[in-house]
Amino acid sequence: MNNSLNIPKKQKLTKKGQETRSRIIVAAAELMYEQGVARTTIEDVQNKAKISASQMYHYFKEKKELVLEVISYQTSRVIGTHTRYLSNLDSFEALYAWRDFIVNIQIKRNCEGGCPLGSLASELVEINSDAQQEIMSSFFEWEDSIKKGLRYMLNHGELNSDADPDKLALALLAALQGGLLLTQVRRDPTPIIVALDTMIEHIISFKKV
Amino acid sequence: MNNSLNIPKKQKLTKKGQETRSRIIVAAAELMYEQGVARTTIEDVQNKAKISASQMYHYFKEKKELVLEVISYQTSRVIGTHTRYLSNLDSFEALYAWRDFIVNIQIKRNCEGGCPLGSLASELVEINSDAQQEIMSSFFEWEDSIKKGLRYMLNHGELNSDADPDKLALALLAALQGGLLLTQVRRDPTPIIVALDTMIEHIISFKKV
Repeated sequence: MNNSLNIPKKQKLTKKGQETRSRIIVAAAELMYEQGVARTTIEDVQNKAKISASQMYHYFKEKKELVLEVISYQTSRVIGTHTRYLSNLDSFEALYAWRDFIVNIQIKRNCEGGCPLGSLASELVEINSDAQQEIMSSFFEWEDSIKKGLRYMLNHGELNSDADPDKLALALLAALQGGLLLTQVRRDPTPIIVALDTMIEHIISFKKV
Repeated sequence: MNNSLNIPKKQKLTKKGQETRSRIIVAAAELMYEQGVARTTIEDVQNKAKISASQMYHYFKEKKELVLEVISYQTSRVIGTHTRYLSNLDSFEALYAWRDFIVNIQIKRNCEGGCPLGSLASELVEINSDAQQEIMSSFFEWEDSIKKGLRYMLNHGELNSDADPDKLALALLAALQGGLLLTQVRRDPTPIIVALDTMIEHIISFKKV
């Protein structure tokens, strides 16, 4: 999590101001990913971003505003990387390349942390209605990018007409989220591997022959 | 969440003491389910359970101890109810009855709250290693109860020998967890319905003919 490329520019800020603002969001995202939103104080973020309290206040009046920016930052990071694999799913090999990409991230981080969006969802949905709306949009966007990939496979004759790419996309996203949670709990990549492989085998059962 | 039947008795407490201890755990479980663990203070629990600070201290010296009891309480509640459906899965109708049971809970609670165990997992796994161990055991226990159900179907000739009940059980638990999270985020039962139906259709593809 060492780039700020995914952070939309804020109007009326200088280049330096944009950079500071991005640094705050990235620092907050890292802390909230590691220890949760409730346990992350504004002071923690200030220290990590190496800024003063008054600078912090200049950019974010309330923690709530910062939380919404963190959701938007994590959304563009997660969906950005997944879209690279999903934008032109033209074969089952491509589906397995996506699966390998997800599994390898978990192995590299020793199965710690879970999904950046899933964790925010679980913590915030019941207690912050603005966050719930943002996270809901994020998941719809993610689901759409999977739908597009599976529709592409249907339209390019990889899947037969019995396949419902919209339902399969939602089931695949659910398998991904549940698999990531169980992998995080068990510190073992097996759940995410089994969850994705089972869903991909199910999708393969619609292979056009 | 209005019973305390699932709370194991503590040695050396009077009947009244057991009851007070159970009342504390149930109150804590409800609050932590509604607002998360970090946001639930010992004072919140005291107020909800209608006890004094010194009574609280008599039963639980630290919030950490209480959190472990809440995990164990939620585990026995969740697995207890699911086991009723999973202990003798002797038909695909029984699998669909389990699915209906899960979906109906979500509809009744307006898709709020998500999975009591999944939420605890997502909040605690990275920050509390005792909780991580407890939650890992809980999920293994849950997975085992699903495995037993699917093995029963295999052994009673409902599934053919290509079916791997252990993998299918893990994939089904992942679909359940991911489906519940997406249903919670969207306030819509569709994700849990689609996630479970897709996995059950996949299991049906191993039906013995």
